[in-house]
Amino acid sequence: MQPFSNRVTKLLKIEYPIIQAGMIWTSGWRLAAAVSNAGGLGVLGAGSMTPALLREHIQKCKAATNKPFAVNLPLLYAGIQEQLAVVEEEKVPIVITSAGNPAAWTPHLKSKGITVVHVVSSSKFARKAEAAGCDAVIAEGFEAGGHNGREETTTLVLIPAVCKAVQIPVIAAGGIATGRQLFASMVLGAEGGQLGTRFVASEEASNHLNFKKRVIQAGEGETQLSLKKLTPVRLLHNHFFEQVQAAEERGASEEELAQLLGKGRAKKGMFDGDLEEGELEIGQVSALLDTILPAEQIVNEVWREFLDACKAPFHFKS
Amino acid sequence: MQPFSNRVTKLLKIEYPIIQAGMIWTSGWRLAAAVSNAGGLGVLGAGSMTPALLREHIQKCKAATNKPFAVNLPLLYAGIQEQLAVVEEEKVPIVITSAGNPAAWTPHLKSKGITVVHVVSSSKFARKAEAAGCDAVIAEGFEAGGHNGREETTTLVLIPAVCKAVQIPVIAAGGIATGRQLFASMVLGAEGGQLGTRFVASEEASNHLNFKKRVIQAGEGETQLSLKKLTPVRLLHNHFFEQVQAAEERGASEEELAQLLGKGRAKKGMFDGDLEEGELEIGQVSALLDTILPAEQIVNEVWREFLDACKAPFHFKS
Repeated sequence: MQPFSNRVTKLLKIEYPIIQAGMIWTSGWRLAAAVSNAGGLGVLGAGSMTPALLREHIQKCKAATNKPFAVNLPLLYAGIQEQLAVVEEEKVPIVITSAGNPAAWTPHLKSKGITVVHVVSSSKFARKAEAAGCDAVIAEGFEAGGHNGREETTTLVLIPAVCKAVQIPVIAAGGIATGRQLFASMVLGAEGGQLGTRFVASEEASNHLNFKKRVIQAGEGETQLSLKKLTPVRLLHNHFFEQVQAAEERGASEEELAQLLGKGRAKKGMFDGDLEEGELEIGQVSALLDTILPAEQIVNEVWREFLDACKAPFHFKS
Repeated sequence: MQPFSNRVTKLLKIEYPIIQAGMIWTSGWRLAAAVSNAGGLGVLGAGSMTPALLREHIQKCKAATNKPFAVNLPLLYAGIQEQLAVVEEEKVPIVITSAGNPAAWTPHLKSKGITVVHVVSSSKFARKAEAAGCDAVIAEGFEAGGHNGREETTTLVLIPAVCKAVQIPVIAAGGIATGRQLFASMVLGAEGGQLGTRFVASEEASNHLNFKKRVIQAGEGETQLSLKKLTPVRLLHNHFFEQVQAAEERGASEEELAQLLGKGRAKKGMFDGDLEEGELEIGQVSALLDTILPAEQIVNEVWREFLDACKAPFHFKS
């Protein structure tokens, strides 16, 4: 395959501008190491790990690959300072921050020589990330799985807007599972793509096999951005989702919704495999997936399709 | 400019695969004729016209261009039979149907030699349109303005899904205002793009100048899919929207929402220019617009940017 180089591959020291999303209950060291070994950027999802477990995953990841990998840290979670300490002590080269103010930790992380990428859902937040000293932003559209922005801007609109707003590299996220979707996002100005849902359906992902199988069976219209009075999150339809939907339709308060959500729903669904009572976070693009593959094969297939899309004038059908 | 040919330009007998959306209170004969004369497909929006007014616009459009143009007919509106009779008598070559069952009228229209394109928001509806004999579909994503599907699938996900589901040509809609966005949608498998919001901000659009100015001032996050208990519609934020939002948050019933909406809100906002009490239908991509231009210039700019995007390896920045 032809070599590729842009600001994102140089910044992250990776072969292809394919970033695996750091996802709770999903992105452990097996997945992150496999993606990094395949030439993309593997990312550990610290949001569902204690500091001790995060350290274990970092150490196992370092043993399984000598390529760069990252840790995703949701800044609003409790225990962020302990997690940051682990990341620094273990000399993780790249941190992806999300769900919080980038100004809080970026200068500190940068002073330790760590590359910092922040996840945003709007141009306004992208400008804040740039001002805070972040090296790049991941701009995530409405179609993405899991927690999401309140403005509901889709990737097709968000990427041109964010690329106009900041000078630092922009990585597209939300609705990207194939090489053509990656290319489309780069036509819009992104310099790389973050894939979440596609890697949920990988052999190495640590989520439950029940969940993986449900994801590849999902059809169009089977996810919905929900719990908007709490933190908006894209959920796959199941019994829990139906309860949320019914509550929202009758105008349930924030407190009622928080009580309905309860504790541990995400683990129950995605990690323990309870497909009806658990919280199943996944992107719209699940509708396009039908197989569970090794992560290396996913990276290679996406990249091959990306290169074909770049070369082929298929848009000039006659 | 280099000549371009694909199934969409051949089917619609146009120079560029740029379709102007048929929009109520917006797409009269001046806009449609200007777009067709510029090499795209101009479309009259019959949804806000009486049969007599539709006939007048068709006749004026025919006088102003000898190129093909279309009429958009929302199938669920009252008076559809009278409108169809006008379209047939006036020998309109192309009809774009939306908001209804394509099986109801497609065979009849086809028997009269009329090209039929149906607007869909899912693969399921696209398959129905193909089975009904439609010549093409317009697949419209969540980010689009005006009335929209319930599944909320975005253009980035919808286009690959619909292209996989049907053999007839697919035209992308929702989030397309620039040549790069058009190219991105064609990378995903579409063979053309429908632009609505971009043409709202055209000199020839018949909507009120107040509305055009508001559209080009709109920022990210200033539109939202609303009135989901009635028919989902993407609205620009204003006093009326705030009332709708407050009602929805407290769980207002379908009846309450219908009463709040009342009659004539869309005309009041878009045609009469009441920016606070009227219903302002516009797409997310309004956030990217900042000028009102002649329709011909819009077509030319979009096409030039499309061609540049095709040729330029800007995605291989180094």
